[in-house]
Amino acid sequence: MANLGPGRPRSEQRPRRGHTPRAEILDAAGELFTTNGYANTSTRAVADAVGIRQASLYHHFAAKDDILDALLAETIAAPFELAERLRADADPAPTRLYALAWFDVRQLCAARWNLGALYLLPELRTERFVAFRLRRDELRGHYETLAEAVIEGAGAAGIPGAEVLPFRLVETVISIRSDEGRAPTYAEQTIPDAALRMLGWAGDLEEARSDAALLLERLAAD
Amino acid sequence: MANLGPGRPRSEQRPRRGHTPRAEILDAAGELFTTNGYANTSTRAVADAVGIRQASLYHHFAAKDDILDALLAETIAAPFELAERLRADADPAPTRLYALAWFDVRQLCAARWNLGALYLLPELRTERFVAFRLRRDELRGHYETLAEAVIEGAGAAGIPGAEVLPFRLVETVISIRSDEGRAPTYAEQTIPDAALRMLGWAGDLEEARSDAALLLERLAAD
Repeated sequence: MANLGPGRPRSEQRPRRGHTPRAEILDAAGELFTTNGYANTSTRAVADAVGIRQASLYHHFAAKDDILDALLAETIAAPFELAERLRADADPAPTRLYALAWFDVRQLCAARWNLGALYLLPELRTERFVAFRLRRDELRGHYETLAEAVIEGAGAAGIPGAEVLPFRLVETVISIRSDEGRAPTYAEQTIPDAALRMLGWAGDLEEARSDAALLLERLAAD
Repeated sequence: MANLGPGRPRSEQRPRRGHTPRAEILDAAGELFTTNGYANTSTRAVADAVGIRQASLYHHFAAKDDILDALLAETIAAPFELAERLRADADPAPTRLYALAWFDVRQLCAARWNLGALYLLPELRTERFVAFRLRRDELRGHYETLAEAVIEGAGAAGIPGAEVLPFRLVETVISIRSDEGRAPTYAEQTIPDAALRMLGWAGDLEEARSDAALLLERLAAD
């Protein structure tokens, strides 16, 4: 196995985040996949990093790709749930798109490992990950539906095809985080602001932001 | 080695793009790295795909990471050269940023393999690739300088930090191409248009596009 990052000492206690062995396995795998690479990481290395035996790991995950699938699912679960709830919401489209982009950027920044960096793995294009790909396509679809509504409401001559861009702009957090070595917290404002502007929306961005904050609070309280 | 894509038959003739053995090696490696993965590809597999012996490959590249480095350099060489020339150009900043983004999107779409997908490899964060990373940072710096000038000229209350986004937006071509399985040629217009709009530039986009086309023609003729 190529050792690409600084070595992490194996401690006798469990140094892992998570209250369950499953969560600890995911945390260790998230670190190894993003720092040493997916292909370079064996299930044995994951078990070692958690401080459990490989047989115990197999009790939770039958194979390495099951671990990857679970990690990938985590990256979209919360924004997906929010997007589904926003569909049924009566707030204006700019407020809803702002809320979704803000929430999604925040969770991509807050995640302990930059798991979105795994989206470009060639392994993801295999049959094994078709369910994940479809789910992420659905999330992208939610973004596009909201973006189309923003463009329609903006009235101005829009940019043809711009509805695909807010989802993509949100995911640039992954590249920024990879290049800068830390989560770009400034992006929580910059990216939702820019997403509305590039759809031709000329309204007040501070208002959009405070409306989105209220909307997110309301949904969190429901 | 995991076989992740459909197998490509080894032919007796050289089926590779390129007029030199070096170019053929790069083409084969570009395919294997993007379809099977970098870690999953041996120099032996690259040599086999070209139809040469491994010893002959080593005559051109001493190690696998030298092949990766050469491929990565290719992805930024042309936009980098253009960006350097645009610095000295007297055209307005929106025209120059439009030209750079358009040219860069076009080359990312036209490249035979989606090599930008390799930017997120953990291997790139090692010492070996520091020269490439610095070079790409310089390109990003050129984008940001142009974007700052566009924001300043736009006069409107800008989005704080938006100058980092045009470079990132251009590179979303890589994710789109990976997800859609083909180059998003529509992005050649959508992305430069959106880059100007998110910087608060409210001018005529068709004019920006035709000015940028003239600028690119002029520079190509020089």
